[in-house]
Amino acid sequence: MAVPPTIEWHDGVIRILDQRALPHRIEVLVCSRVAEVADAIQCLAIRGAPALGVAAAFGVALGARQYRPNADGKFSDFLDRVVEELVRTRPTAVNLAWAARTVRAAVADHGTDTPAAQAEILLKRASALAADNDRRHKKLAVHGANLISPGDRVLHHCNTGPLATGAAYGSALGIIQAAHQRGGVSVWVNETRPLLQGARLTTWELDQWGIPYTLITDGMAGHFMQRGAVDQVLVGADRIAANGDVANKIGTYTMAQLAQAHGLPFIVAAPVSTIDFDTPTGAHIPIEERDPGEVRGYDDARWVPSESSVANPAFDVTPHNLVSAIVTDLGIARPPLKQSLAKWITPAETNE
Amino acid sequence: MAVPPTIEWHDGVIRILDQRALPHRIEVLVCSRVAEVADAIQCLAIRGAPALGVAAAFGVALGARQYRPNADGKFSDFLDRVVEELVRTRPTAVNLAWAARTVRAAVADHGTDTPAAQAEILLKRASALAADNDRRHKKLAVHGANLISPGDRVLHHCNTGPLATGAAYGSALGIIQAAHQRGGVSVWVNETRPLLQGARLTTWELDQWGIPYTLITDGMAGHFMQRGAVDQVLVGADRIAANGDVANKIGTYTMAQLAQAHGLPFIVAAPVSTIDFDTPTGAHIPIEERDPGEVRGYDDARWVPSESSVANPAFDVTPHNLVSAIVTDLGIARPPLKQSLAKWITPAETNE
Repeated sequence: MAVPPTIEWHDGVIRILDQRALPHRIEVLVCSRVAEVADAIQCLAIRGAPALGVAAAFGVALGARQYRPNADGKFSDFLDRVVEELVRTRPTAVNLAWAARTVRAAVADHGTDTPAAQAEILLKRASALAADNDRRHKKLAVHGANLISPGDRVLHHCNTGPLATGAAYGSALGIIQAAHQRGGVSVWVNETRPLLQGARLTTWELDQWGIPYTLITDGMAGHFMQRGAVDQVLVGADRIAANGDVANKIGTYTMAQLAQAHGLPFIVAAPVSTIDFDTPTGAHIPIEERDPGEVRGYDDARWVPSESSVANPAFDVTPHNLVSAIVTDLGIARPPLKQSLAKWITPAETNE
Repeated sequence: MAVPPTIEWHDGVIRILDQRALPHRIEVLVCSRVAEVADAIQCLAIRGAPALGVAAAFGVALGARQYRPNADGKFSDFLDRVVEELVRTRPTAVNLAWAARTVRAAVADHGTDTPAAQAEILLKRASALAADNDRRHKKLAVHGANLISPGDRVLHHCNTGPLATGAAYGSALGIIQAAHQRGGVSVWVNETRPLLQGARLTTWELDQWGIPYTLITDGMAGHFMQRGAVDQVLVGADRIAANGDVANKIGTYTMAQLAQAHGLPFIVAAPVSTIDFDTPTGAHIPIEERDPGEVRGYDDARWVPSESSVANPAFDVTPHNLVSAIVTDLGIARPPLKQSLAKWITPAETNE
């Protein structure tokens, strides 16, 4: 297949598949400076918590190569500023900050090496992190597929495929990929307003895999659950608090309440790096408020006047008591989630 | 205000404010033939159950004037075909069929009058029905405003203003109009995908009345309920079964489940003519499936390929056990709804 990877390091630059152009056009952004990576993250050319982790990791490596000894001050201070520039692009996803700081820490004990040598170490660390991200999503998919029976009709919100993970397997969609290989599944695809990641990206990925789906508006999900046409809800996560509260794309909480009302499993899929043990509950997770223009229309189309009053929280928090299972690369956590997650408290990077 | 009415009979034609052009442009469709009225209904230039009733009523009167004695057969058979042409445009709204048949019945005992005289009777009957519709919505609004306290933050789905009722007051939005006159209220406006009646029409109406609102995507409703920012949910109805099950715009059922989960009142507003006592439960209400293109994009914009698999039910059914109150022109029905509604079984037209 001629589709380029979601993100890759290639010959001194970062190549990013521009998700804003999908599904209509395949366009690749070539980033040769860290500011371009930060822009690509902020404008959602690349999105999805694990993919943002990979972007931030390579971003630190790329930034290190821009260092000019005379103009940029101390190398370690410069690196800290690179990390800061990447971390502040999106406040909710924990993987982004985690990945940037993990890569940054690789040169903490190499202060006497030349900046060029340290930049090389950073790139190796970022590449290892990307490879690890790939392995972890494959493991996650295999674990999660055990929760799906042949013929199941899975409802999915937002996009959690390779476009969101930067890996060969998605998170929630990775489970669907793996489950489909074992026996047919079909997918109810929530379009996921306002940015339509479900309509634009998830359908595009499912088409590539030959997995049957039906695209619906977010408000239709309850109707099809009521009619008995949904077997479980599968979503990703942007950050999971220590108690199992899940921050994910706006609309997820509504799906969790609907699953509860219909007695359906509500399954969250995310690598262990998405669990933020420093965040005790969902109430401590900052929710990014995005441009109101995203709600007033889509792309160039505007269906309400620009002076209309709009709210646009990008995420919501699903409380742990609505979550049936959290599938990670290390296995499946079940309620009570706080206790189940706690066994993975060891910093994720030491598990590689 | 220079805004033309939603629908009016004017000098032998029906003038319809074309809601497809709102909020960007004020355009009026002039219908001089019943086929044009049917088209206007089918393409959603006019929509909303009570407004469709007014359109169907005037449509019958307009159709009667097209009668050609030699070409069209017996006048009464011709009239039946006119009714049929109007009724089949939209299957879910009961007001449309009810209004067309009510007007048609006005000449059942006038078989010896000339067609022209009968057409005159039909027009008088349609005008009376429109005036009655206006009075009923005002009464409904006054009853319903008793359920709203000053400062309440009401969540509203779809559009139920004068654009939907063809009256000076809306149904659910009519309650908000009346409540706002008594003391300030504010409105969470669900955009209501796929056709965005909330984003395009409800915000436009609220702007005219100076009622503060916040436009959100449908998936955000749960989030704001979770945060304690919603006091009740107010919606209209396209058909209410005898047991209190409510068919309304797709997404309504999801709002009802969310209201239940958060302990919020879920209030349905509709004139008594919306109650179909011949339909015992919601399971008997036909759900209109509309063009998949409506889900693949909006207006001229398309964000998924035309071959993508799509579902597009226009309505869903909220079971009576999720409904806190049904506000009508005759008063407020409370659970047990079947018994409460039964006192209005007398055909609505005899109450005029």
